[in-house]
Amino acid sequence: MSVVHRTIERPPLDIVDALAKCGTATVHEAMGRIGLLQSYMRPIWKGARVAGTAVTVSIPPADNWMLHVAVEQCREGDILVVAPTSLCDAGYFGELLATSLKVRGVRGLVIEAGVRDIAELEEMGFPVWSRFVSAQGTVKATLGSVNVPIVCAGASISPGDIIVADDDGVMVVPKARSETALQASRARLEKERQTRARLMAGELGLDIYGMRETLAAKGLTYID
Amino acid sequence: MSVVHRTIERPPLDIVDALAKCGTATVHEAMGRIGLLQSYMRPIWKGARVAGTAVTVSIPPADNWMLHVAVEQCREGDILVVAPTSLCDAGYFGELLATSLKVRGVRGLVIEAGVRDIAELEEMGFPVWSRFVSAQGTVKATLGSVNVPIVCAGASISPGDIIVADDDGVMVVPKARSETALQASRARLEKERQTRARLMAGELGLDIYGMRETLAAKGLTYID
Amino acid sequence: MSVVHRTIERPPLDIVDALAKCGTATVHEAMGRIGLLQSYMRPIWKGARVAGTAVTVSIPPADNWMLHVAVEQCREGDILVVAPTSLCDAGYFGELLATSLKVRGVRGLVIEAGVRDIAELEEMGFPVWSRFVSAQGTVKATLGSVNVPIVCAGASISPGDIIVADDDGVMVVPKARSETALQASRARLEKERQTRARLMAGELGLDIYGMRETLAAKGLTYID
Amino acid sequence: MSVVHRTIERPPLDIVDALAKCGTATVHEAMGRIGLLQSYMRPIWKGARVAGTAVTVSIPPADNWMLHVAVEQCREGDILVVAPTSLCDAGYFGELLATSLKVRGVRGLVIEAGVRDIAELEEMGFPVWSRFVSAQGTVKATLGSVNVPIVCAGASISPGDIIVADDDGVMVVPKARSETALQASRARLEKERQTRARLMAGELGLDIYGMRETLAAKGLTYID
Amino acid sequence: MSVVHRTIERPPLDIVDALAKCGTATVHEAMGRIGLLQSYMRPIWKGARVAGTAVTVSIPPADNWMLHVAVEQCREGDILVVAPTSLCDAGYFGELLATSLKVRGVRGLVIEAGVRDIAELEEMGFPVWSRFVSAQGTVKATLGSVNVPIVCAGASISPGDIIVADDDGVMVVPKARSETALQASRARLEKERQTRARLMAGELGLDIYGMRETLAAKGLTYID
Amino acid sequence: MSVVHRTIERPPLDIVDALAKCGTATVHEAMGRIGLLQSYMRPIWKGARVAGTAVTVSIPPADNWMLHVAVEQCREGDILVVAPTSLCDAGYFGELLATSLKVRGVRGLVIEAGVRDIAELEEMGFPVWSRFVSAQGTVKATLGSVNVPIVCAGASISPGDIIVADDDGVMVVPKARSETALQASRARLEKERQTRARLMAGELGLDIYGMRETLAAKGLTYID
Repeated sequence: MSVVHRTIERPPLDIVDALAKCGTATVHEAMGRIGLLQSYMRPIWKGARVAGTAVTVSIPPADNWMLHVAVEQCREGDILVVAPTSLCDAGYFGELLATSLKVRGVRGLVIEAGVRDIAELEEMGFPVWSRFVSAQGTVKATLGSVNVPIVCAGASISPGDIIVADDDGVMVVPKARSETALQASRARLEKERQTRARLMAGELGLDIYGMRETLAAKGLTYID
Repeated sequence: MSVVHRTIERPPLDIVDALAKCGTATVHEAMGRIGLLQSYMRPIWKGARVAGTAVTVSIPPADNWMLHVAVEQCREGDILVVAPTSLCDAGYFGELLATSLKVRGVRGLVIEAGVRDIAELEEMGFPVWSRFVSAQGTVKATLGSVNVPIVCAGASISPGDIIVADDDGVMVVPKARSETALQASRARLEKERQTRARLMAGELGLDIYGMRETLAAKGLTYID
Repeated sequence: MSVVHRTIERPPLDIVDALAKCGTATVHEAMGRIGLLQSYMRPIWKGARVAGTAVTVSIPPADNWMLHVAVEQCREGDILVVAPTSLCDAGYFGELLATSLKVRGVRGLVIEAGVRDIAELEEMGFPVWSRFVSAQGTVKATLGSVNVPIVCAGASISPGDIIVADDDGVMVVPKARSETALQASRARLEKERQTRARLMAGELGLDIYGMRETLAAKGLTYID
Repeated sequence: MSVVHRTIERPPLDIVDALAKCGTATVHEAMGRIGLLQSYMRPIWKGARVAGTAVTVSIPPADNWMLHVAVEQCREGDILVVAPTSLCDAGYFGELLATSLKVRGVRGLVIEAGVRDIAELEEMGFPVWSRFVSAQGTVKATLGSVNVPIVCAGASISPGDIIVADDDGVMVVPKARSETALQASRARLEKERQTRARLMAGELGLDIYGMRETLAAKGLTYID
Repeated sequence: MSVVHRTIERPPLDIVDALAKCGTATVHEAMGRIGLLQSYMRPIWKGARVAGTAVTVSIPPADNWMLHVAVEQCREGDILVVAPTSLCDAGYFGELLATSLKVRGVRGLVIEAGVRDIAELEEMGFPVWSRFVSAQGTVKATLGSVNVPIVCAGASISPGDIIVADDDGVMVVPKARSETALQASRARLEKERQTRARLMAGELGLDIYGMRETLAAKGLTYID
Repeated sequence: MSVVHRTIERPPLDIVDALAKCGTATVHEAMGRIGLLQSYMRPIWKGARVAGTAVTVSIPPADNWMLHVAVEQCREGDILVVAPTSLCDAGYFGELLATSLKVRGVRGLVIEAGVRDIAELEEMGFPVWSRFVSAQGTVKATLGSVNVPIVCAGASISPGDIIVADDDGVMVVPKARSETALQASRARLEKERQTRARLMAGELGLDIYGMRETLAAKGLTYID
């Protein structure tokens, strides 16, 4: 059955915005190293760092009809997250759909398939993380669903979860864990700031993290 | 048998140039969604948008001898299109061959294999779409053919066909269909211009394209 | 057994520096077309061209403990070369480790696995060639070895070998062959300079390289 | 946090057994074409057709410690389902672990990684669906979790869900939907039995399914 | 436009049958090493060796409607050859369609996509060469074309061409070249028969093919 | 420079034969988990388990000339190990070369490229581990080297090293370590025999290996 859930619970945007600043690598570590999408999800242009609320789309291969349905469900602060039901590299999404999303305040697209018009999307400053780039067109013949739980690039994503994305990739923070994720991320950033200063002063990680004894205990042997 | 066809029928350059401005995604749609090369064909640098007449080369794996033969067959407005007879990632092509092609007015290279000197090629402004980047050298030992029909990255290409390439990928327009392709592309661009304006004004694709009824008829269900 | 060899024989840095200027494609040809790493080893940002002395690390999958051990073994002019013992796309390396390496004068990283913080690494100007980009974290639980012979991306690399890397990829020059590699590279560059001038003047490779007779002898047939 | 849920709700084994007889393709269609794992999940030997209750394992890359923990949680009628937290082809599982599972009545293994001893596993008649085959060993250093929801090869799987696997691949039936899946599968099998008889008698699908009119309405043109 | 060409010119079946006996490797060499489909096209079961006349289908991704249309165009001695218009691993084809084809005397299927029911297909003795195996279902919503020229797995195939397939892969022989291909294949088989006898008697290829002088002239050096 | 080393030091065949019986997974573990070739190296038919002395060949892509040279260097108990200098899926090797090797007592082929005639090779009982299967032919135009150190599928292999191969893959044992590898393998097999008996009696690995305390110390939590 094809359904569109119109009402989803969204996390507070100030938490979302604060997570964006932390970046995927930090939030991923702070979450206990879970929630990352597969490494083949790459930005179509470099330099974007965003977070937003997931509006999810389960969609047939090479059929982008449901993207038009999904646009209407998006609002300020959202990120559209799209997973085809089987492997597909077709170009589901281009500059016209991006225009429509941008007007609604949507912050980006995450799609385990192809996109096109990438020069125009970069010019518009609309960020996209995709598995493929392809000019291949799609049809509008078969339904899917909007705002249902999906698996996108190996990660389980529910509508209303927080998506964090930058040049390192894409990750999902379940909305129930957003506040603890933010706190842990900030603590980690502060700790890294301190470590960075010591590393720049020439100290070694071996000493800062106190690794020498454990390494020796495990049997590491130095040979001159 | 290894042959070089010296005479190929080329389409008028004004049509070729006009197609370049339309871009691959538009021309591909205008052609009825055919003619696209596989999505693993990527530009070695971003921002080029060209069209040209295909001079085709069927070439052995890891042997670039026939590229030197092909250069002589190229002229102003051409694009060299190269397909090895079996899978190969070696670097067939670099800055010297590009220099020679550029002198002759060739607009770019499409090769289902590897290229090298990509920093220099970008500096020269010579556009290349390839499957691989590799410094791996090739030999000059075995013949191939120039200006025969080839399959490159999944598309059937004949000498004299029009190649359109940009950041979204590469496509081929058979020369017999170039004028209709251009007319359809222009019509599409005009239509997109109008749609874009309406989308920027906040209208939804659902309404502009009149999709609501068909979606409902197919059984799409909204849940609040 | 996990060992760290503290003493490795390094080649003179003036030879290393001179090889960097030649670039991978030239050095690779000058060496007789050997020593190139697989073409999936790509720079995380474009435009770097470096050479350095290999400090090698054999490392477990998704465990970056030994990178901290390796940092201490690096000095001015080195390049860290890392190979996991089985396929792994996790992000072993980020901005903190790069800070530590940079302080020690290390010129870059070559890793057949994933890296993260790539925006920060580009900002720092720290060059990395990797197989993957991924924010996925690693553990610190299992030992490996530093400065042992390794196979990285299909190439056999010993500590003290010279790594040359640029936008075309990565290659290794065994330290015993560094001087002859440099001489042959320079000869090749000079020859290419002369060829380039002739090509720019409109001469054809077919004539410059005297290929017409051999091609005809092999049976190449021209058809008008 | 690493947890082992000792208590999971299992579906009735008679439903599980009945689903095994239907096969993945039929159950997948009956479920509305959802629940299939990626097509790279292949049997290590041909001819097995099983169903069982999922005992799930989230596991670090190249570390099989938690498999030993998971064995104790398995009982008659289960299938062990294993997903590493990042891409890994190492051989987590071999004949000894299979012996232990077989003693407990476990029906098979589904793992998005590598396995080894495949000749012995076939001899034992223990079925495995994996992404890779590899003799590469793993360590026992880092924890994971047992009987938590996981994503395996693109499908979301909870402990207690039903796994159906045969030569066509692997699919998951959420336990809440097992009875309706079985009814729909049986209805489909009966319908296919009738269709098969008509096809064998020479009737065409075009006529049995009444497609000719719709095809014509869509514009299909026959040319003699 | 979607078309079905009802009339295609078929080669004489005795030539087709004779080519099947030669096998892909022999026919491929006899044709001058052209016409082979990509090596990822693999048989779903081992041991089949067939040849047949190509009935071609250009089909949308994950939509198998046109297969039902194509069945009607098939007759005794044909092989159905199917290429989706973009990358797709869905299971287009199973036991019911195979039943229908078998009734009509069709010899096999070549498809650059997925198939399912592979245990049943092996039991029926219906040979299939595909890129993927997958239980993933398809829809029936969008048209394609039957008996138009297609590119399948990198090879250009026209309706009426001869397909030769065995455990080594799939190749196409253009119908115009079928007789010369057969003659050359037979000559090659006879020559191989003689060579085999000499090799079994202990003679070396180096001597049988007279390679020693050419190798020495090229500079091959033996070191004791 | 292309060289053929006629004299290589071979390990005693009784050690080689004894290693074959242990299998790749056991020997790999006994060696400290090193020496395995990439998991994409697969047997063309199932059930072979062999070991032999490596005769190595470095060979150009899609050119099998040097295989004929290599045959002459092979003797009873050898395995031919072949690595192309760049990625290649062409079919270098078929039934005629296998006939010649078999006459000389060669035990198998390991090749990081393609092979053909696989039905015939299985019928002959000649085992092959390859990366690809392909009927694609090769040329005889460019030299390579025999019995030089090579990297094959990610493993460094010297002439005279021992190759162990079975359904789990391929591994290399450096000849200097063959006796210790054998002893450690035998010890491991004996230990596994004892463990197997206990597992079949229903004991758990958790108890046999004494893992419960370490797991608890690491923080593993059981939830009922």
